[in-house]
Amino acid sequence: MAAPLRFVAISGSLRAASTNTALLRHLTSIGAEHGAQVEIADISGFPVFSQDIEADGLPADVTALAESIRGADGVIFATPEYNYSIAAPLKNAIDWISRARNDDGVQPFSGKPVAIVGSGGGMRTMRAQNHLRQVGVFLNFKAFNGEFGVNYFAEKIFDDEGNIVDEATQKRLAEHLAGFVDFVKA
Amino acid sequence: MAAPLRFVAISGSLRAASTNTALLRHLTSIGAEHGAQVEIADISGFPVFSQDIEADGLPADVTALAESIRGADGVIFATPEYNYSIAAPLKNAIDWISRARNDDGVQPFSGKPVAIVGSGGGMRTMRAQNHLRQVGVFLNFKAFNGEFGVNYFAEKIFDDEGNIVDEATQKRLAEHLAGFVDFVKA
Amino acid sequence: MAAPLRFVAISGSLRAASTNTALLRHLTSIGAEHGAQVEIADISGFPVFSQDIEADGLPADVTALAESIRGADGVIFATPEYNYSIAAPLKNAIDWISRARNDDGVQPFSGKPVAIVGSGGGMRTMRAQNHLRQVGVFLNFKAFNGEFGVNYFAEKIFDDEGNIVDEATQKRLAEHLAGFVDFVKA
Amino acid sequence: MAAPLRFVAISGSLRAASTNTALLRHLTSIGAEHGAQVEIADISGFPVFSQDIEADGLPADVTALAESIRGADGVIFATPEYNYSIAAPLKNAIDWISRARNDDGVQPFSGKPVAIVGSGGGMRTMRAQNHLRQVGVFLNFKAFNGEFGVNYFAEKIFDDEGNIVDEATQKRLAEHLAGFVDFVKA
Repeated sequence: MAAPLRFVAISGSLRAASTNTALLRHLTSIGAEHGAQVEIADISGFPVFSQDIEADGLPADVTALAESIRGADGVIFATPEYNYSIAAPLKNAIDWISRARNDDGVQPFSGKPVAIVGSGGGMRTMRAQNHLRQVGVFLNFKAFNGEFGVNYFAEKIFDDEGNIVDEATQKRLAEHLAGFVDFVKA
Repeated sequence: MAAPLRFVAISGSLRAASTNTALLRHLTSIGAEHGAQVEIADISGFPVFSQDIEADGLPADVTALAESIRGADGVIFATPEYNYSIAAPLKNAIDWISRARNDDGVQPFSGKPVAIVGSGGGMRTMRAQNHLRQVGVFLNFKAFNGEFGVNYFAEKIFDDEGNIVDEATQKRLAEHLAGFVDFVKA
Repeated sequence: MAAPLRFVAISGSLRAASTNTALLRHLTSIGAEHGAQVEIADISGFPVFSQDIEADGLPADVTALAESIRGADGVIFATPEYNYSIAAPLKNAIDWISRARNDDGVQPFSGKPVAIVGSGGGMRTMRAQNHLRQVGVFLNFKAFNGEFGVNYFAEKIFDDEGNIVDEATQKRLAEHLAGFVDFVKA
Repeated sequence: MAAPLRFVAISGSLRAASTNTALLRHLTSIGAEHGAQVEIADISGFPVFSQDIEADGLPADVTALAESIRGADGVIFATPEYNYSIAAPLKNAIDWISRARNDDGVQPFSGKPVAIVGSGGGMRTMRAQNHLRQVGVFLNFKAFNGEFGVNYFAEKIFDDEGNIVDEATQKRLAEHLAGFVDFVKA
């Protein structure tokens, strides 16, 4: 039996009760059914990006996550949409990680399969996802075209603990993960 | 004689030697010639955005800058381009400031004239500026259509102290400021 | 009593039963209540843009619409979203009109107030509207930040004749027009 | 010896002397060196897209090109940038081709490797290319992240017959093609 694919999952919201992180937790829980192990990264200790900090060496948290991504089979971003673009904490994590070049000068996202999910308002984070895809052109994401987003204003998607209680959403998210797994294996 | 227009200027780079901040310093120095007082804001103390922090109250730095913007005649952003989008520190500042709603629920950028400048690579931050303009649709910028960007890889734009030594760039930047002043007065 | 504002309205769909054109027809019918006269332009005779055609002179239809826009108080675009971007017929109309420079070299859209509406799928043409706004940076639209879109898959928005039968949509569209009128008068 | 990869190339400019078509002609001439046969498509007969025309059946030119793309190993777009977005003739061609669904309801671009080149002004069509990439998310391009653009205002890139005479440009374009071939074979 094949080892599961290992995906690093990064939530763009630092809020403990984040519905974006909740999407990733759900993926973690259903991963095994799809041959995937989804690990949620911790970016809460990253400082705001500054090249003056970088000049003294990348923060240890950044280096560790960069290495984890380098060894992974793919990355899953959960992006809130703040002000019609990528949430600052996610852009900050990406900007830091992109600086962790290896001895060949290659940053961790290069050639890495990437899937995106998002929880937001009426447009379901699609504006932020579009910006994130443009980031991926520069960082050379192997970007999965599948899109997944939810409108958290809609009733009954999440319960108070952040569990997805809407069956249609559960089904769509499972299909998104399955599609990404197929994409990575192809 | 009319009082000068007061513009709050925000640089998206925290680096002390930032060429983006250098563009703003130049605007500060030539402002009087154009009837403008350009004040460079300090966003270096903003934490990475989190609604959990926000729940305890906005950081004092955020509130102070929000008030300064509210009273200003316009905002000038200097945006680096990191990974084909808005630099994390700038998006972070914007995400924070957008949360500082007044008693009427209005955030500080609403209806505010906004100009953009940027220093970056070959495309002169135009991808980041495009994303910033989309942010402005949500935040209701009164956006100046004029564009200004420099390619810092080109020779001789800045000296080692970050002064603009290229005359064509000085002229273009002065015209950008003059155009923005006319736009605000119209 | 003030003369009504005159708005030129351009639909990006050539289909006779277009729901985008239907939005414009509704604006025409309610214009008088808002002090606006909305005239729907006819772009159905424009050829696909080619500089070789242009070299022989702009098509008469293009010149006529350009003049109409030049004399108008604003432009209203109704944009379908085809393949996540501006519908080809609308981009084609804009590309042609942008070539109709006057003796001072100024194209008709420069400085002109512009509002956007759209009828499309789940994201209500917001991706296409974003692209159209970027077009407006180059063409110097005085762009109204207000957004209006409908999801035509939702039930009961239009009847078989293309009349808007959903009251909430009627109300939102009237508010959009009223907001644009205020924007133009300000 | 392996058969060459067959690429369908579509120029977004209908002008006979188009520098975008010139880029494609150059690719045709160097294709054999890279194991690629580049065929320039003819979209000059496509009418402006209308669902009323479509209702009577897709134009024969559209159907033929759709079939050619379906059998190809990839597509290369040469996109001018008109008014900061995709040139109307190219968007029109894409909108038409996307309607040519097969018996399984699949349009010709789905899963197809796609590379982009462009000749334009100072930003080298990068704004238009960004919009084209967003189109590709919907149409499920297997998009090559490599970017190629030229600024035709720069001296000596093309001679009067549209041949590329700048050696650095020739080299960059050859590398772009080689990169795309590797991408398709991977």
